[in-house]
Amino acid sequence: MKIVRSVREMQAESDKIRRAGHVIGFVPTMGFLHEGHLNLLRIAREKADRTILSIFVNPTQFGPNEDLNHYPRDIERDETLAEEAGCDILFYPPVEEMYPAPFRTAVTVAEITQVLCGISRPTHFRGVTTIVAKLFNIVKPHFAVFGQKDAQQLIVIKQMVRDLNFDIDIITGPIVREADGLAMSSRNVYLSPEERKEAVMLYKSLMAAKTLIDSGERNADAIRAELERRLRQAKTAKIDYAEIVDTQNLKPLETIQGEILIALAVFFGRTRLIDNIQVSV
Amino acid sequence: MKIVRSVREMQAESDKIRRAGHVIGFVPTMGFLHEGHLNLLRIAREKADRTILSIFVNPTQFGPNEDLNHYPRDIERDETLAEEAGCDILFYPPVEEMYPAPFRTAVTVAEITQVLCGISRPTHFRGVTTIVAKLFNIVKPHFAVFGQKDAQQLIVIKQMVRDLNFDIDIITGPIVREADGLAMSSRNVYLSPEERKEAVMLYKSLMAAKTLIDSGERNADAIRAELERRLRQAKTAKIDYAEIVDTQNLKPLETIQGEILIALAVFFGRTRLIDNIQVSV
Repeated sequence: MKIVRSVREMQAESDKIRRAGHVIGFVPTMGFLHEGHLNLLRIAREKADRTILSIFVNPTQFGPNEDLNHYPRDIERDETLAEEAGCDILFYPPVEEMYPAPFRTAVTVAEITQVLCGISRPTHFRGVTTIVAKLFNIVKPHFAVFGQKDAQQLIVIKQMVRDLNFDIDIITGPIVREADGLAMSSRNVYLSPEERKEAVMLYKSLMAAKTLIDSGERNADAIRAELERRLRQAKTAKIDYAEIVDTQNLKPLETIQGEILIALAVFFGRTRLIDNIQVSV
Repeated sequence: MKIVRSVREMQAESDKIRRAGHVIGFVPTMGFLHEGHLNLLRIAREKADRTILSIFVNPTQFGPNEDLNHYPRDIERDETLAEEAGCDILFYPPVEEMYPAPFRTAVTVAEITQVLCGISRPTHFRGVTTIVAKLFNIVKPHFAVFGQKDAQQLIVIKQMVRDLNFDIDIITGPIVREADGLAMSSRNVYLSPEERKEAVMLYKSLMAAKTLIDSGERNADAIRAELERRLRQAKTAKIDYAEIVDTQNLKPLETIQGEILIALAVFFGRTRLIDNIQVSV
Protein backbone atom coordinates (compact mmCIF):
# COMPACT_ATOMS: atom_id res chain seq x y z
CA MET A 1 0.00 0.00 0.00
CA LYS A 2 1.33 3.37 -1.03
CA ILE A 3 0.97 6.34 1.30
CA VAL A 4 0.53 9.72 -0.36
CA ARG A 5 0.56 13.00 1.56
CA SER A 6 0.62 15.68 -1.15
CA VAL A 7 -2.22 16.80 -3.40
CA ARG A 8 -0.01 17.02 -6.44
CA GLU A 9 1.36 13.50 -6.00
CA MET A 10 -2.13 12.09 -5.45
CA GLN A 11 -3.40 13.73 -8.65
CA ALA A 12 -0.40 12.37 -10.57
CA GLU A 13 -1.00 8.85 -9.20
CA SER A 14 -4.67 8.98 -10.15
CA ASP A 15 -3.84 10.27 -13.62
CA LYS A 16 -1.49 7.33 -14.07
CA ILE A 17 -4.15 4.84 -12.99
CA ARG A 18 -6.75 6.41 -15.25
CA ARG A 19 -4.41 6.52 -18.24
CA ALA A 20 -3.84 2.78 -17.77
CA GLY A 21 -7.60 2.38 -18.19
CA HIS A 22 -8.16 1.27 -14.59
CA VAL A 23 -11.19 2.06 -12.45
CA ILE A 24 -10.58 4.00 -9.22
CA GLY A 25 -12.81 3.34 -6.20
CA PHE A 26 -12.60 5.86 -3.36
CA VAL A 27 -13.47 5.69 0.33
CA PRO A 28 -13.14 9.04 2.14
CA THR A 29 -12.83 8.75 5.95
CA MET A 30 -11.72 10.66 9.02
CA GLY A 31 -9.69 7.64 10.13
CA PHE A 32 -9.78 5.64 13.38
CA LEU A 33 -11.04 2.90 11.11
CA HIS A 34 -13.63 0.39 12.24
CA GLU A 35 -15.44 -2.46 10.57
CA GLY A 36 -17.88 0.00 8.98
CA HIS A 37 -15.05 1.72 7.07
CA LEU A 38 -13.37 -1.57 6.20
CA ASN A 39 -16.62 -2.82 4.77
CA LEU A 40 -16.79 0.27 2.51
CA LEU A 41 -13.26 -0.54 1.39
CA ARG A 42 -14.29 -4.11 0.54
CA ILE A 43 -17.24 -2.83 -1.48
CA ALA A 44 -14.85 -0.52 -3.35
CA ARG A 45 -12.40 -3.34 -4.01
CA GLU A 46 -15.07 -5.49 -5.60
CA LYS A 47 -15.86 -2.88 -8.25
CA ALA A 48 -12.52 -1.11 -8.69
CA ASP A 49 -9.13 -1.93 -10.14
CA ARG A 50 -7.46 0.40 -7.63
CA THR A 51 -8.85 1.40 -4.24
CA ILE A 52 -7.93 4.68 -2.59
CA LEU A 53 -8.81 5.48 1.02
CA SER A 54 -8.37 8.95 2.44
CA ILE A 55 -7.88 9.79 6.10
CA PHE A 56 -8.39 13.45 6.94
CA VAL A 57 -9.97 14.83 10.09
CA ASN A 58 -11.53 17.80 8.36
CA PRO A 59 -11.54 20.82 10.67
CA THR A 60 -14.18 22.75 8.72
CA GLN A 61 -16.93 20.23 9.40
CA PHE A 62 -16.60 20.59 13.18
CA GLY A 63 -18.42 23.37 15.01
CA PRO A 64 -16.60 25.64 17.49
CA ASN A 65 -17.79 23.60 20.50
CA GLU A 66 -17.41 20.18 18.93
CA ASP A 67 -14.80 17.43 19.30
CA LEU A 68 -12.21 18.31 16.63
CA ASN A 69 -9.30 18.31 19.07
CA HIS A 70 -10.40 15.12 20.80
CA TYR A 71 -11.48 13.23 17.70
CA PRO A 72 -9.78 9.81 18.02
CA ARG A 73 -6.73 9.27 15.83
CA ASP A 74 -4.42 6.28 15.33
CA ILE A 75 -2.74 6.47 11.96
CA GLU A 76 -0.44 3.47 12.53
CA ARG A 77 -3.34 1.18 13.34
CA ASP A 78 -5.29 2.67 10.40
CA GLU A 79 -2.43 1.95 8.02
CA THR A 80 -2.33 -1.69 9.08
CA LEU A 81 -6.10 -2.10 8.84
CA ALA A 82 -6.32 -0.36 5.45
CA GLU A 83 -3.50 -2.45 4.02
CA GLU A 84 -5.00 -5.69 5.35
CA ALA A 85 -8.32 -4.75 3.76
CA GLY A 86 -6.60 -4.42 0.39
CA CYS A 87 -6.31 -0.65 0.05
CA ASP A 88 -3.91 0.33 -2.76
CA ILE A 89 -3.27 3.97 -1.88
CA LEU A 90 -3.79 5.73 1.45
CA PHE A 91 -4.17 9.49 0.97
CA TYR A 92 -3.33 11.14 4.27
CA PRO A 93 -2.69 14.86 3.75
CA PRO A 94 -1.69 17.35 6.45
CA VAL A 95 -4.17 20.16 7.20
CA GLU A 96 -1.89 22.85 5.62
CA GLU A 97 -1.91 20.86 2.38
CA MET A 98 -5.70 20.91 2.24
CA TYR A 99 -6.34 24.44 3.48
CA PRO A 100 -3.47 26.67 2.35
CA ALA A 101 -4.05 30.32 3.27
CA PRO A 102 -5.82 32.37 2.06
CA PHE A 103 -8.59 29.79 1.69
CA ARG A 104 -11.82 31.39 0.49
CA THR A 105 -14.00 28.85 -1.31
CA ALA A 106 -16.98 26.83 -0.07
CA VAL A 107 -19.38 24.39 -1.64
CA THR A 108 -22.84 24.68 -0.12
CA VAL A 109 -26.06 22.75 -0.54
CA ALA A 110 -29.30 24.51 0.41
CA GLU A 111 -32.46 23.22 2.13
CA ILE A 112 -31.55 19.58 2.83
CA THR A 113 -28.61 20.76 4.98
CA GLN A 114 -30.84 22.94 7.17
CA VAL A 115 -32.76 20.07 8.78
CA LEU A 116 -31.88 17.11 11.02
CA CYS A 117 -28.14 17.38 11.88
CA GLY A 118 -28.07 20.81 10.19
CA ILE A 119 -30.06 22.33 13.04
CA SER A 120 -27.60 21.57 15.84
CA ARG A 121 -24.58 21.61 13.47
CA PRO A 122 -25.25 24.62 11.20
CA THR A 123 -21.80 24.72 9.52
CA HIS A 124 -21.23 20.96 9.37
CA PHE A 125 -22.46 20.11 5.87
CA ARG A 126 -20.75 23.10 4.31
CA GLY A 127 -17.50 21.65 5.65
CA VAL A 128 -18.41 18.19 4.36
CA THR A 129 -19.37 19.24 0.84
CA THR A 130 -16.31 21.48 0.51
CA ILE A 131 -13.86 18.78 1.59
CA VAL A 132 -15.56 16.07 -0.48
CA ALA A 133 -15.46 18.30 -3.59
CA LYS A 134 -11.74 18.84 -2.94
CA LEU A 135 -11.10 15.12 -2.40
CA PHE A 136 -12.98 14.26 -5.60
CA ASN A 137 -10.75 16.65 -7.56
CA ILE A 138 -7.64 15.24 -5.92
CA VAL A 139 -8.41 11.50 -6.03
CA LYS A 140 -10.34 11.62 -9.35
CA PRO A 141 -12.30 8.44 -8.63
CA HIS A 142 -14.78 6.73 -10.93
CA PHE A 143 -16.93 5.99 -7.88
CA ALA A 144 -16.91 6.73 -4.17
CA VAL A 145 -18.42 4.69 -1.32
CA PHE A 146 -20.14 6.40 1.62
CA GLY A 147 -21.74 4.76 4.64
CA GLN A 148 -25.50 4.71 5.15
CA LYS A 149 -24.94 5.57 8.83
CA ASP A 150 -24.47 9.20 7.80
CA ALA A 151 -27.75 9.14 5.90
CA GLN A 152 -28.15 12.90 5.57
CA GLN A 153 -24.52 13.31 4.46
CA LEU A 154 -25.09 10.72 1.75
CA ILE A 155 -28.18 12.53 0.45
CA VAL A 156 -26.36 15.89 0.55
CA ILE A 157 -23.37 14.49 -1.33
CA LYS A 158 -25.56 12.91 -3.98
CA GLN A 159 -27.21 16.32 -4.46
CA MET A 160 -23.83 18.03 -4.80
CA VAL A 161 -22.56 15.43 -7.27
CA ARG A 162 -25.70 15.83 -9.38
CA ASP A 163 -25.72 19.64 -9.24
CA LEU A 164 -22.00 20.15 -9.90
CA ASN A 165 -21.88 17.36 -12.52
CA PHE A 166 -19.14 15.36 -10.85
CA ASP A 167 -18.73 12.32 -13.11
CA ILE A 168 -18.54 10.03 -10.09
CA ASP A 169 -20.94 7.29 -8.99
CA ILE A 170 -21.94 7.44 -5.34
CA ILE A 171 -22.32 3.99 -3.82
CA THR A 172 -23.88 3.32 -0.43
CA GLY A 173 -22.38 0.93 2.10
CA PRO A 174 -24.67 -0.54 4.77
CA ILE A 175 -24.50 0.30 8.46
CA VAL A 176 -22.25 -2.17 10.26
CA ARG A 177 -23.34 -2.86 13.84
CA GLU A 178 -21.85 -4.27 17.02
CA ALA A 179 -23.31 -7.57 18.28
CA ASP A 180 -25.92 -5.72 20.37
CA GLY A 181 -26.99 -3.48 17.46
CA LEU A 182 -25.04 -0.26 18.17
CA ALA A 183 -23.93 1.26 14.86
CA MET A 184 -20.14 1.32 14.57
CA SER A 185 -18.69 4.80 14.93
CA SER A 186 -15.27 6.22 15.71
CA ARG A 187 -17.01 8.22 18.42
CA ASN A 188 -18.16 5.12 20.32
CA VAL A 189 -14.79 5.15 22.16
CA TYR A 190 -15.95 8.28 23.98
CA LEU A 191 -18.75 6.36 25.78
CA SER A 192 -18.53 5.42 29.46
CA PRO A 193 -19.51 1.80 30.22
CA GLU A 194 -23.00 2.93 31.28
CA GLU A 195 -23.45 5.17 28.21
CA ARG A 196 -22.22 2.33 26.00
CA LYS A 197 -24.82 0.01 27.45
CA GLU A 198 -27.61 2.57 27.01
CA ALA A 199 -26.53 3.59 23.47
CA VAL A 200 -28.05 0.37 22.14
CA MET A 201 -31.41 2.09 22.66
CA LEU A 202 -30.78 3.93 19.34
CA TYR A 203 -31.06 0.68 17.47
CA LYS A 204 -33.81 -0.73 19.70
CA SER A 205 -36.02 2.31 19.19
CA LEU A 206 -35.49 2.16 15.40
CA MET A 207 -36.47 -1.51 15.47
CA ALA A 208 -39.54 -0.69 17.55
CA ALA A 209 -40.51 1.97 14.98
CA LYS A 210 -40.08 -0.53 12.19
CA THR A 211 -42.24 -3.06 14.01
CA LEU A 212 -44.99 -0.47 14.36
CA ILE A 213 -44.83 0.33 10.63
CA ASP A 214 -44.78 -3.37 9.75
CA SER A 215 -47.89 -3.83 11.86
CA GLY A 216 -49.68 -1.13 9.85
CA GLU A 217 -49.11 2.12 11.77
CA ARG A 218 -49.08 5.01 9.27
CA ASN A 219 -49.24 8.00 11.62
CA ALA A 220 -45.75 9.49 11.81
CA ASP A 221 -46.46 11.28 15.11
CA ALA A 222 -47.39 7.99 16.75
CA ILE A 223 -44.08 6.49 15.62
CA ARG A 224 -42.12 9.57 16.74
CA ALA A 225 -43.77 9.26 20.15
CA GLU A 226 -42.71 5.64 20.39
CA LEU A 227 -39.10 6.52 19.40
CA GLU A 228 -38.96 9.20 22.07
CA ARG A 229 -40.59 6.98 24.70
CA ARG A 230 -37.96 4.29 24.12
CA LEU A 231 -35.04 6.72 24.02
CA ARG A 232 -36.14 8.32 27.29
CA GLN A 233 -35.72 4.94 28.96
CA ALA A 234 -31.95 5.53 28.68
CA LYS A 235 -31.01 7.77 31.63
CA THR A 236 -27.86 9.19 30.02
CA ALA A 237 -29.66 9.99 26.72
CA LYS A 238 -30.63 13.48 25.59
CA ILE A 239 -32.47 13.54 22.28
CA ASP A 240 -31.18 15.98 19.62
CA TYR A 241 -33.79 14.80 17.13
CA ALA A 242 -35.92 11.76 16.33
CA GLU A 243 -37.43 12.36 12.91
CA ILE A 244 -39.33 10.59 10.18
CA VAL A 245 -38.65 12.24 6.83
CA ASP A 246 -38.92 11.81 3.09
CA THR A 247 -35.65 10.39 1.68
CA GLN A 248 -35.66 12.85 -1.25
CA ASN A 249 -36.15 16.24 0.40
CA LEU A 250 -35.73 15.29 4.09
CA LYS A 251 -39.02 16.98 4.96
CA PRO A 252 -40.91 15.62 8.00
CA LEU A 253 -43.73 13.27 7.10
CA GLU A 254 -47.21 13.18 8.61
CA THR A 255 -48.11 9.90 6.98
CA ILE A 256 -45.78 6.96 6.43
CA GLN A 257 -45.66 6.40 2.70
CA GLY A 258 -43.04 5.70 0.02
CA GLU A 259 -39.33 5.74 0.84
CA ILE A 260 -38.92 7.05 4.38
CA LEU A 261 -35.93 7.70 6.59
CA ILE A 262 -36.17 7.34 10.36
CA ALA A 263 -33.21 9.27 11.72
CA LEU A 264 -31.94 9.76 15.26
CA ALA A 265 -29.33 11.97 16.88
CA VAL A 266 -28.94 11.46 20.59
CA PHE A 267 -26.38 12.58 23.14
CA PHE A 268 -25.21 9.92 25.57
CA GLY A 269 -23.43 12.07 28.12
CA ARG A 270 -21.34 14.43 25.96
CA THR A 271 -21.17 12.05 23.01
CA ARG A 272 -23.54 12.68 20.13
CA LEU A 273 -24.42 9.54 18.18
CA ILE A 274 -26.56 9.12 15.07
CA ASP A 275 -28.37 6.16 13.62
CA ASN A 276 -31.11 5.55 11.07
CA ILE A 277 -33.10 3.08 9.06
CA GLN A 278 -34.76 3.45 5.71
CA VAL A 279 -38.13 1.84 5.25
CA SER A 280 -40.03 1.34 2.02
CA VAL A 281 -43.81 1.32 2.52
CA MET B 1 -16.88 20.84 -35.48
CA LYS B 2 -19.09 18.67 -33.31
CA ILE B 3 -21.99 20.23 -31.42
CA VAL B 4 -22.85 18.64 -28.09
CA ARG B 5 -25.94 19.57 -26.09
CA SER B 6 -26.07 16.99 -23.29
CA VAL B 7 -23.88 16.79 -20.19
CA ARG B 8 -23.53 13.03 -20.44
CA GLU B 9 -22.44 13.13 -24.08
CA MET B 10 -19.91 15.90 -23.36
CA GLN B 11 -18.39 13.90 -20.49
CA ALA B 12 -18.18 10.82 -22.71
CA GLU B 13 -16.50 12.84 -25.50
CA SER B 14 -13.96 14.28 -23.07
CA ASP B 15 -13.26 10.85 -21.57
CA LYS B 16 -12.55 9.56 -25.06
CA ILE B 17 -10.16 12.43 -25.81
CA ARG B 18 -8.37 11.97 -22.50
CA ARG B 19 -8.07 8.20 -22.93
CA ALA B 20 -6.40 8.84 -26.28
CA GLY B 21 -3.78 10.85 -24.35
CA HIS B 22 -4.85 14.17 -25.88
CA VAL B 23 -4.81 17.54 -24.14
CA ILE B 24 -8.15 19.37 -23.86
CA GLY B 25 -8.19 23.18 -23.94
CA PHE B 26 -11.44 24.87 -22.89
CA VAL B 27 -12.92 28.31 -23.55
CA PRO B 28 -16.15 28.97 -21.63
CA THR B 29 -18.28 31.79 -23.06
CA MET B 30 -21.80 33.21 -23.04
CA GLY B 31 -21.74 33.32 -26.84
CA PHE B 32 -22.30 36.24 -29.24
CA LEU B 33 -18.67 35.69 -30.05
CA HIS B 34 -16.32 38.54 -30.85
CA GLU B 35 -12.64 38.80 -31.60
CA GLY B 36 -11.84 38.60 -27.86
CA HIS B 37 -13.42 35.15 -27.61
CA LEU B 38 -11.89 33.99 -30.89
CA ASN B 39 -8.48 35.03 -29.63
CA LEU B 40 -8.99 32.87 -26.50
CA LEU B 41 -9.86 30.00 -28.82
CA ARG B 42 -6.65 30.54 -30.79
CA ILE B 43 -4.62 30.54 -27.58
CA ALA B 44 -6.32 27.26 -26.60
CA ARG B 45 -5.61 25.73 -30.01
CA GLU B 46 -1.92 26.47 -29.73
CA LYS B 47 -1.56 24.44 -26.52
CA ALA B 48 -4.26 21.80 -26.90
CA ASP B 49 -4.86 18.75 -29.06
CA ARG B 50 -8.61 19.32 -28.86
CA THR B 51 -10.35 22.65 -28.23
CA ILE B 52 -13.78 22.85 -26.65
CA LEU B 53 -15.80 26.06 -26.52
CA SER B 54 -18.95 26.33 -24.46
CA ILE B 55 -21.80 28.75 -25.07
CA PHE B 56 -24.18 29.12 -22.16
CA VAL B 57 -25.90 32.32 -21.07
CA ASN B 58 -25.85 31.41 -17.40
CA PRO B 59 -28.99 32.74 -15.67
CA THR B 60 -27.56 32.48 -12.14
CA GLN B 61 -24.86 35.10 -12.75
CA PHE B 62 -27.40 37.78 -13.69
CA GLY B 63 -29.08 39.86 -10.98
CA PRO B 64 -32.86 40.34 -10.93
CA ASN B 65 -32.64 43.74 -12.68
CA GLU B 66 -29.91 42.83 -15.13
CA ASP B 67 -29.93 42.00 -18.83
CA LEU B 68 -30.43 38.20 -18.88
CA ASN B 69 -33.44 38.35 -21.20
CA HIS B 70 -31.84 40.89 -23.53
CA TYR B 71 -28.35 39.42 -23.56
CA PRO B 72 -27.42 39.19 -27.26
CA ARG B 73 -27.58 35.71 -28.79
CA ASP B 74 -26.81 34.44 -32.30
CA ILE B 75 -25.99 30.76 -32.20
CA GLU B 76 -25.78 30.31 -35.98
CA ARG B 77 -23.21 33.06 -36.34
CA ASP B 78 -21.36 31.70 -33.28
CA GLU B 79 -21.21 28.22 -34.81
CA THR B 80 -19.67 29.60 -37.99
CA LEU B 81 -17.16 31.75 -36.11
CA ALA B 82 -16.15 28.96 -33.72
CA GLU B 83 -15.69 26.48 -36.54
CA GLU B 84 -13.64 28.94 -38.58
CA ALA B 85 -11.42 29.57 -35.54
CA GLY B 86 -10.72 25.85 -35.31
CA CYS B 87 -12.96 24.80 -32.44
CA ASP B 88 -13.31 20.99 -32.27
CA ILE B 89 -16.38 20.70 -30.03
CA LEU B 90 -19.02 23.32 -29.27
CA PHE B 91 -20.82 22.57 -25.99
CA TYR B 92 -24.15 24.34 -26.09
CA PRO B 93 -26.46 22.96 -23.40
CA PRO B 94 -30.05 24.06 -22.77
CA VAL B 95 -30.78 25.67 -19.38
CA GLU B 96 -32.79 22.65 -18.12
CA GLU B 97 -29.77 20.44 -18.78
CA MET B 98 -27.56 22.62 -16.57
CA TYR B 99 -30.04 23.39 -13.78
CA PRO B 100 -32.36 20.42 -13.36
CA ALA B 101 -34.76 20.91 -10.44
CA PRO B 102 -34.34 20.70 -7.52
CA PHE B 103 -31.01 22.50 -7.87
CA ARG B 104 -29.49 23.25 -4.46
CA THR B 105 -25.71 23.58 -4.73
CA ALA B 106 -23.51 26.67 -4.97
CA VAL B 107 -19.79 27.30 -5.09
CA THR B 108 -18.89 30.52 -3.33
CA VAL B 109 -15.65 32.45 -2.92
CA ALA B 110 -15.43 34.87 0.01
CA GLU B 111 -13.82 38.33 0.32
CA ILE B 112 -12.54 38.92 -3.23
CA THR B 113 -16.12 38.62 -4.55
CA GLN B 114 -17.42 41.33 -2.19
CA VAL B 115 -15.50 44.20 -3.79
CA LEU B 116 -15.46 45.92 -7.21
CA CYS B 117 -18.22 44.26 -9.34
CA GLY B 118 -19.38 42.36 -6.24
CA ILE B 119 -20.79 45.53 -4.72
CA SER B 120 -23.28 46.36 -7.48
CA ARG B 121 -23.67 42.69 -8.51
CA PRO B 122 -23.85 40.84 -5.16
CA THR B 123 -24.89 37.41 -6.54
CA HIS B 124 -22.88 37.55 -9.76
CA PHE B 125 -19.71 35.70 -8.75
CA ARG B 126 -21.60 32.96 -6.95
CA GLY B 127 -23.30 32.28 -10.28
CA VAL B 128 -19.97 32.40 -12.12
CA THR B 129 -18.08 30.05 -9.79
CA THR B 130 -20.97 27.58 -9.69
CA ILE B 131 -21.33 27.38 -13.48
CA VAL B 132 -17.57 27.24 -14.04
CA ALA B 133 -17.22 24.39 -11.52
CA LYS B 134 -20.00 22.56 -13.36
CA LEU B 135 -18.43 23.21 -16.77
CA PHE B 136 -15.05 21.99 -15.51
CA ASN B 137 -16.64 18.71 -14.36
CA ILE B 138 -18.48 18.34 -17.67
CA VAL B 139 -15.70 19.34 -20.10
CA LYS B 140 -12.82 17.89 -18.03
CA PRO B 141 -10.20 20.16 -19.61
CA HIS B 142 -6.46 20.15 -18.91
CA PHE B 143 -6.52 23.93 -19.12
CA ALA B 144 -9.06 26.71 -19.56
CA VAL B 145 -8.58 30.16 -21.08
CA PHE B 146 -10.30 33.22 -19.59
CA GLY B 147 -10.09 36.79 -20.79
CA GLN B 148 -8.26 39.47 -18.84
CA LYS B 149 -11.15 41.85 -19.50
CA ASP B 150 -13.06 40.17 -16.66
CA ALA B 151 -10.09 40.69 -14.33
CA GLN B 152 -11.97 40.07 -11.10
CA GLN B 153 -13.63 36.94 -12.52
CA LEU B 154 -10.21 35.61 -13.47
CA ILE B 155 -8.85 36.15 -9.95
CA VAL B 156 -11.96 34.59 -8.39
CA ILE B 157 -11.73 31.55 -10.65
CA LYS B 158 -8.05 31.08 -9.91
CA GLN B 159 -8.91 31.14 -6.20
CA MET B 160 -11.67 28.56 -6.68
CA VAL B 161 -9.41 26.30 -8.74
CA ARG B 162 -6.70 26.47 -6.08
CA ASP B 163 -9.07 25.98 -3.14
CA LEU B 164 -11.10 23.13 -4.67
CA ASN B 165 -8.00 21.48 -6.19
CA PHE B 166 -9.28 21.44 -9.75
CA ASP B 167 -6.39 19.93 -11.72
CA ILE B 168 -6.82 22.54 -14.45
CA ASP B 169 -4.43 25.29 -15.53
CA ILE B 170 -6.01 28.71 -15.85
CA ILE B 171 -4.57 30.68 -18.75
CA THR B 172 -5.17 34.37 -19.31
CA GLY B 173 -6.00 35.82 -22.71
CA PRO B 174 -5.31 39.53 -23.31
CA ILE B 175 -8.00 42.17 -23.77
CA VAL B 176 -8.79 42.61 -27.45
CA ARG B 177 -9.78 46.18 -28.35
CA GLU B 178 -11.54 47.99 -31.16
CA ALA B 179 -9.42 50.38 -33.25
CA ASP B 180 -10.23 53.28 -30.91
CA GLY B 181 -9.37 51.31 -27.77
CA LEU B 182 -12.81 50.16 -26.55
CA ALA B 183 -12.50 46.66 -25.10
CA MET B 184 -14.50 44.13 -27.11
CA SER B 185 -17.63 42.98 -25.31
CA SER B 186 -20.86 41.30 -26.34
CA ARG B 187 -22.62 44.14 -24.54
CA ASN B 188 -21.15 46.82 -26.84
CA VAL B 189 -24.09 46.19 -29.20
CA TYR B 190 -26.36 47.85 -26.62
CA LEU B 191 -24.63 51.23 -27.04
CA SER B 192 -26.24 54.12 -28.91
CA PRO B 193 -23.93 55.91 -31.39
CA GLU B 194 -23.25 58.65 -28.81
CA GLU B 195 -22.61 56.16 -25.99
CA ARG B 196 -20.37 54.13 -28.28
CA LYS B 197 -18.30 57.22 -29.01
CA GLU B 198 -18.02 58.15 -25.35
CA ALA B 199 -17.27 54.59 -24.19
CA VAL B 200 -13.72 54.97 -25.47
CA MET B 201 -13.18 57.11 -22.38
CA LEU B 202 -12.78 53.86 -20.39
CA TYR B 203 -9.60 53.08 -22.23
CA LYS B 204 -8.45 56.71 -22.42
CA SER B 205 -8.75 57.17 -18.67
CA LEU B 206 -6.84 53.92 -18.04
CA MET B 207 -4.09 55.17 -20.35
CA ALA B 208 -4.05 58.51 -18.56
CA ALA B 209 -3.65 56.66 -15.23
CA LYS B 210 -0.81 54.62 -16.65
CA THR B 211 0.90 57.74 -17.91
CA LEU B 212 0.69 59.26 -14.43
CA ILE B 213 2.22 56.13 -12.88
CA ASP B 214 4.93 55.99 -15.55
CA SER B 215 5.78 59.60 -14.74
CA GLY B 216 6.28 58.68 -11.06
CA GLU B 217 2.90 59.31 -9.38
CA ARG B 218 2.53 56.86 -6.45
CA ASN B 219 -0.49 58.33 -4.69
CA ALA B 220 -3.47 56.12 -5.54
CA ASP B 221 -6.01 58.84 -4.66
CA ALA B 222 -4.42 61.21 -7.14
CA ILE B 223 -4.75 58.59 -9.86
CA ARG B 224 -8.35 57.76 -8.88
CA ALA B 225 -9.16 61.47 -9.12
CA GLU B 226 -7.69 61.61 -12.63
CA LEU B 227 -9.68 58.51 -13.68
CA GLU B 228 -12.89 60.10 -12.42
CA ARG B 229 -12.11 63.49 -13.94
CA ARG B 230 -11.63 61.90 -17.36
CA LEU B 231 -14.69 59.66 -17.09
CA ARG B 232 -16.87 62.61 -16.12
CA GLN B 233 -16.00 64.20 -19.46
CA ALA B 234 -18.32 61.61 -21.04
CA LYS B 235 -21.84 62.99 -20.61
CA THR B 236 -23.58 59.57 -20.86
CA ALA B 237 -21.21 57.98 -18.32
CA LYS B 238 -22.15 57.09 -14.76
CA ILE B 239 -19.29 55.62 -12.76
CA ASP B 240 -20.01 52.38 -10.85
CA TYR B 241 -16.42 52.19 -9.63
CA ALA B 242 -12.93 53.34 -10.55
CA GLU B 243 -10.52 51.48 -8.30
CA ILE B 244 -6.84 50.79 -7.85
CA VAL B 245 -6.34 47.52 -6.03
CA ASP B 246 -3.84 44.83 -5.19
CA THR B 247 -4.02 42.00 -7.76
CA GLN B 248 -3.86 39.32 -5.04
CA ASN B 249 -6.57 40.34 -2.57
CA LEU B 250 -8.31 43.12 -4.57
CA LYS B 251 -7.98 45.51 -1.63
CA PRO B 252 -7.78 49.24 -2.47
CA LEU B 253 -4.25 50.62 -2.46
CA GLU B 254 -3.09 53.91 -0.97
CA THR B 255 0.32 53.71 -2.58
CA ILE B 256 1.08 52.35 -6.03
CA GLN B 257 3.46 49.45 -5.49
CA GLY B 258 3.91 45.91 -6.80
CA GLU B 259 1.33 44.31 -9.06
CA ILE B 260 -1.66 46.59 -9.26
CA LEU B 261 -4.98 46.42 -11.03
CA ILE B 262 -6.76 49.55 -12.22
CA ALA B 263 -10.36 48.51 -12.75
CA LEU B 264 -13.35 50.43 -14.06
CA ALA B 265 -17.06 49.75 -14.26
CA VAL B 266 -19.06 52.51 -15.90
CA PHE B 267 -22.62 52.77 -17.17
CA PHE B 268 -23.04 54.39 -20.57
CA GLY B 269 -26.76 54.96 -20.59
CA ARG B 270 -28.16 51.63 -19.35
CA THR B 271 -25.17 49.61 -20.51
CA ARG B 272 -22.60 48.69 -17.87
CA LEU B 273 -19.10 48.22 -19.30
CA ILE B 274 -15.91 47.14 -17.55
CA ASP B 275 -12.27 47.57 -18.44
CA ASN B 276 -8.91 47.34 -16.68
CA ILE B 277 -5.18 47.38 -16.93
CA GLN B 278 -2.58 45.69 -14.78
CA VAL B 279 0.54 47.64 -13.99
CA SER B 280 3.74 46.34 -12.43
CA VAL B 281 5.61 49.02 -10.47
